Amino acid sequence: MNLHSLFHPRAVALIGASTEQNKLSGRPLRFFREYGYAGGIYPVNPKYQAMDGLRCFAKLSDIPVEVDLAVITLPASAVPGALAACGAKGVKAAAIISSGFAEVGGEGARLQEELARIAAEYGIAVCGPNCSGFVYFPEKVTASFSVGLNDGFPEAGPAAFVSQSGALSSYILGAARERGLGFRYWITTGNECVLSFTDYLQYLLEDPEVRLVLGYLEDARDGAAFQAAARRALALDKPLIIMKVGRSEAGAKASVSHTGSLAGADEVYQAVFSQNGVLRAESLDELFDLALLAQAPRRPRGKRVQVLSISGAAGILMADVGSELGLDFADLSDATKDELKKIMPPFAAITNPMDVTAEAVARPELLSQAAEVILKDPNVDNLVVFFGIVPGAHEKLAAAIAKVAQGTDKLVVMTWFPLPLTDIWMSLARSGVPVFPEPARGIRALGKMAQYVEAREKALASKSAAIGKEPAVASEVETIVTQAKNRGRNALTEIEAKALLKACGLRVPRGGLARDAVEAKSLAGSIGGPVALKVSSPDLLHKTEAGVIRLNLRSQEEVERAFDEILQRAKKWNPRAHLDGVLVEEMIGGDTREVIVGARQDLRFGSVVTFGLGGIFVEAIRDFAVWPAPLTMDEAREMIRKTRGYPILTAFRGRPAADLVAVAHALCVIGQLASELQNQIAELEINPLFVLPEGSGVIVGDALAVLR
Amino acid sequence: MNLHSLFHPRAVALIGASTEQNKLSGRPLRFFREYGYAGGIYPVNPKYQAMDGLRCFAKLSDIPVEVDLAVITLPASAVPGALAACGAKGVKAAAIISSGFAEVGGEGARLQEELARIAAEYGIAVCGPNCSGFVYFPEKVTASFSVGLNDGFPEAGPAAFVSQSGALSSYILGAARERGLGFRYWITTGNECVLSFTDYLQYLLEDPEVRLVLGYLEDARDGAAFQAAARRALALDKPLIIMKVGRSEAGAKASVSHTGSLAGADEVYQAVFSQNGVLRAESLDELFDLALLAQAPRRPRGKRVQVLSISGAAGILMADVGSELGLDFADLSDATKDELKKIMPPFAAITNPMDVTAEAVARPELLSQAAEVILKDPNVDNLVVFFGIVPGAHEKLAAAIAKVAQGTDKLVVMTWFPLPLTDIWMSLARSGVPVFPEPARGIRALGKMAQYVEAREKALASKSAAIGKEPAVASEVETIVTQAKNRGRNALTEIEAKALLKACGLRVPRGGLARDAVEAKSLAGSIGGPVALKVSSPDLLHKTEAGVIRLNLRSQEEVERAFDEILQRAKKWNPRAHLDGVLVEEMIGGDTREVIVGARQDLRFGSVVTFGLGGIFVEAIRDFAVWPAPLTMDEAREMIRKTRGYPILTAFRGRPAADLVAVAHALCVIGQLASELQNQIAELEINPLFVLPEGSGVIVGDALAVLR
Repeated sequence: MNLHSLFHPRAVALIGASTEQNKLSGRPLRFFREYGYAGGIYPVNPKYQAMDGLRCFAKLSDIPVEVDLAVITLPASAVPGALAACGAKGVKAAAIISSGFAEVGGEGARLQEELARIAAEYGIAVCGPNCSGFVYFPEKVTASFSVGLNDGFPEAGPAAFVSQSGALSSYILGAARERGLGFRYWITTGNECVLSFTDYLQYLLEDPEVRLVLGYLEDARDGAAFQAAARRALALDKPLIIMKVGRSEAGAKASVSHTGSLAGADEVYQAVFSQNGVLRAESLDELFDLALLAQAPRRPRGKRVQVLSISGAAGILMADVGSELGLDFADLSDATKDELKKIMPPFAAITNPMDVTAEAVARPELLSQAAEVILKDPNVDNLVVFFGIVPGAHEKLAAAIAKVAQGTDKLVVMTWFPLPLTDIWMSLARSGVPVFPEPARGIRALGKMAQYVEAREKALASKSAAIGKEPAVASEVETIVTQAKNRGRNALTEIEAKALLKACGLRVPRGGLARDAVEAKSLAGSIGGPVALKVSSPDLLHKTEAGVIRLNLRSQEEVERAFDEILQRAKKWNPRAHLDGVLVEEMIGGDTREVIVGARQDLRFGSVVTFGLGGIFVEAIRDFAVWPAPLTMDEAREMIRKTRGYPILTAFRGRPAADLVAVAHALCVIGQLASELQNQIAELEINPLFVLPEGSGVIVGDALAVLR
Repeated sequence: MNLHSLFHPRAVALIGASTEQNKLSGRPLRFFREYGYAGGIYPVNPKYQAMDGLRCFAKLSDIPVEVDLAVITLPASAVPGALAACGAKGVKAAAIISSGFAEVGGEGARLQEELARIAAEYGIAVCGPNCSGFVYFPEKVTASFSVGLNDGFPEAGPAAFVSQSGALSSYILGAARERGLGFRYWITTGNECVLSFTDYLQYLLEDPEVRLVLGYLEDARDGAAFQAAARRALALDKPLIIMKVGRSEAGAKASVSHTGSLAGADEVYQAVFSQNGVLRAESLDELFDLALLAQAPRRPRGKRVQVLSISGAAGILMADVGSELGLDFADLSDATKDELKKIMPPFAAITNPMDVTAEAVARPELLSQAAEVILKDPNVDNLVVFFGIVPGAHEKLAAAIAKVAQGTDKLVVMTWFPLPLTDIWMSLARSGVPVFPEPARGIRALGKMAQYVEAREKALASKSAAIGKEPAVASEVETIVTQAKNRGRNALTEIEAKALLKACGLRVPRGGLARDAVEAKSLAGSIGGPVALKVSSPDLLHKTEAGVIRLNLRSQEEVERAFDEILQRAKKWNPRAHLDGVLVEEMIGGDTREVIVGARQDLRFGSVVTFGLGGIFVEAIRDFAVWPAPLTMDEAREMIRKTRGYPILTAFRGRPAADLVAVAHALCVIGQLASELQNQIAELEINPLFVLPEGSGVIVGDALAVLR
């Protein structure tokens, strides 16, 4: 879809325009005229001959020139006809502001389908319907009725804003100026009958003048495209700052596997955001704070922060909040400390956070002098300065800090409470030092931006480090899945699932399928040592609950008795279950720990991998991690470390560390399998995966695969 | 200590006053004169005859009238002399603003000790030293050099502010007006050489005009008094809103028991805050937000909130944030829905959060009409309204909402983004509707205030519900502890600790101490069934690590062999350990779960109780709860529920629920014991406490007591 005509129209038709300049249908015309759009403006409304000194056309086709963009404010029922007229006239873009479509259901939904059909037929890029339109600031394209345009044309800037909300977006636009933020694009997506949130995202990222993208998101229709756009944003280092709401909705649907039901929609979103360095704003304040920092000419170079504060208390507050976000308030080097001692008053402690004390009231230049020394220290990645009220010193301090910041390639951030006069802090912001009106907010934004930088570095590096996609998922895998499907089954048996995983290089227990007790005993004999018996049936997926497992059988008699018992039990549990026989396997002994590794297909984002500790951890305390597939070894390791129960897998209370490399590898394998077989496998789970001590690998205890 | 003279002086001496009105030593005089303090003002400085038209005295004793308050701004070395002169003249209160005392150590610390001695001798209420002084607004007592007083005298209000910070407190004072907050008291505590944070707190709470108290706290010197003050605040329904920093410091000291080292200083603070309904502010914004809500004439009546929003997005954002804080966004009653349908546009959905849609732009009265209907619904405890930009409608809307709020006894909160003109939102706030400049901030403040109300109700109710303090801790307990102490020991043996707990009514395993193998076998025989053997020694506290435990011994031979083995092992582990013998006990069988129950004496707050699930939970994933002792059964139950592993104790995967009533009772017993024996027992721990199924009680598996 070509969005060029949307944002760069040479002529605009306002279909349904009204003379009432404060009404929804009158405002776009007023804004186009008032704010100096340079192209042709053509109101279309059969009721008028002229409008605000412009000729008004009865029909679109009456307009004697080519029109690129139509802004439609007609009642819903009249919109399809108007869009078709656009198509006939060769109009390539439309903003349909009118409501009464899919959001009201019924006839509205039908009308919206018609719009989509017409747009497809003529290739029209449609924004909306049921939206507040959009603005492209450089060319004053004000295809919107937003109240955010009411008090003068907002200052333009390097940010783009895309939003699935109408009203709130207007208030964000209205508030942007006083928050020090300027937009290049401001877009409300409405019902997304043609162009989606992601479509705009992709377009905006390629505009070289756009340096950051803000979004308000409820749901991304096209997960894969969203992920691709987020990765593109990372590659371009254009931070994507998104307020994603709807967290409290019950997102997870019913699922067969244990892990399948764990991660709700929001948890998958969070994983996609984390993977791709999307900065998630938890509030409007944070949306602006992150934007302010993203606008700065420099990024954090690392997590080490020195705080320089005119208040000890504000310094401690920032260290508290920053530490929780992973910032590191490390010590300065001895050389720097010595240097600082020469400048600072004798009673000031050279620490981190560092309090310049009340001496800074008498000598505000103390702050900039100390800042200069600190920024030369190789132990410091970023400097955060806190300032308050020092009568008469604000301008001077702002100028001094601006000068210091210009002399370094490290990020300097200022928190200033209460915020001084707008001119002072904005001039500082313009000189490259973002200023935050509250210390906790400033340090939080810095912490999240440092996480962004880290995620970006990882993502860019992981291109090459991605697990080799050997054609492991070869004919053998295909065969297993196809055969099961051909037999009309919707799940693989444990034997089949294990064969699948074995083909992918995972170790499974030695053993085989016994059709009768004699075969079972013979298999047990050839295995040697204690064995486990389990019924094999495509209809009994939860074997523990069904009681069709027997463990640690040591003698031929035990094997024979167990064989009979569990077959009887299986028939009783589900008389209609098809029983393939009984699986006889070696017992996994030694110092093993149990984990669960799963994958499922998310409605939005395709394959996602879930990891959790076995037993009570996943089920009782919902301790698990989720990540989009396929994943790299680094990502897999990170997933494992993210679970609360992680320490149990490390060397602990005299036990050796578990083989985490092998677990990470299994996560990668499962992720790769799930994404390559997206259309065939709905859910895949290894539960338990036995983890042996470091260097000894993992063994698939049981496996489950649900087919699509 | 009598603080009356501090805040209500009839005459003030300014010792060390300067004519330089912008210096620290010149400002208090300027403020006293400029802002209209009605009492006598007497500068004391031998260098001047007069100062700003006032007679200046060479010595304090030259002042011909009685002086109540001295404000001292002399160099540190001259302060003790000045304070002694105050004592001699009968001055009852002093604000020592000068620095150079304990905060610089050495000679400064000595000077501060001298101040404390002089203050005690003459009974002088001293604020400081090393502080920014204080202000009592009604009488314009400006014993401070704060820059917060620089731009006119701040508006007074019902809040009191006590702070362990100087500079930041001035900025808070400076920012208060624009945030809609007014103070009655503003106090910086400095080095607290005489008056502590808590001393002020206690005084302020008793002022009937004070309706809320704000604090900045680094450490409360007197934990018990702080707790008492917090409880008093609850009783008076004067919310205590504290920004407590220093969370990231390593607070926990080395400790013998497992649980002892778990809860750091900040975790104990958090527990004390939770117990006493102290509202903890995580940032300056939140400090103001909570104060704004605490100032409102009404409290939340419960957790049920209806959101009425001009933006769907802002509504969802608030539901997300509010849900996480435990607010309940329940449905309206059918009757209310029917009523609303009559008012609302046909396409608006009657939901929660409820979006009044763009219709509110044309008809802003829609909001107040809907608000009126909603507030009559018995399913609604609180109403939150979100508004944005509607040109021309702000005044009208504010007036309408104010009117609606006056017609209800439920809390109405407004979030307004971007905030309209100051006059508009402040007039609304003055009429009892707090207005927040960001939706997430408003709902967060409401969520925390609802938690305050709940904590308050619990605390007020629990007075009577407190566990009966029977004199269980009787002579038997005293005897056990005293005997061990008399033997020069610093810990109880397992046998003694168990005897102690048995005396308090907890069940311990059957068994006894065997001095030789014959006794062991005989004990095992009389117990019947499998037994456990453990070495009993005051010098071997961690028996598992020492390998001196044998479990599940069934035969006489096993008992004999185990007896010999573990004694040998004990001698090898610690050749100098005194060995009392071997403890022979019944094995605890059946469906038991293991928990850990501990108590220790916190440096600030006295006895605290710790609870965690046994095994890996406490140690590997630090999953535990801490609470000040003594505790009520309700508090004990709450502690158990707060751990992440709690579901494991409930009916789960076919296992019966554990006896949580018995666990809660054990927590109460331990808490009571620890607080009654504060001076004798340093740490007490039951690890494990075996928990039997519901109704079957708990059994002390092992116990440890460290004496003071």
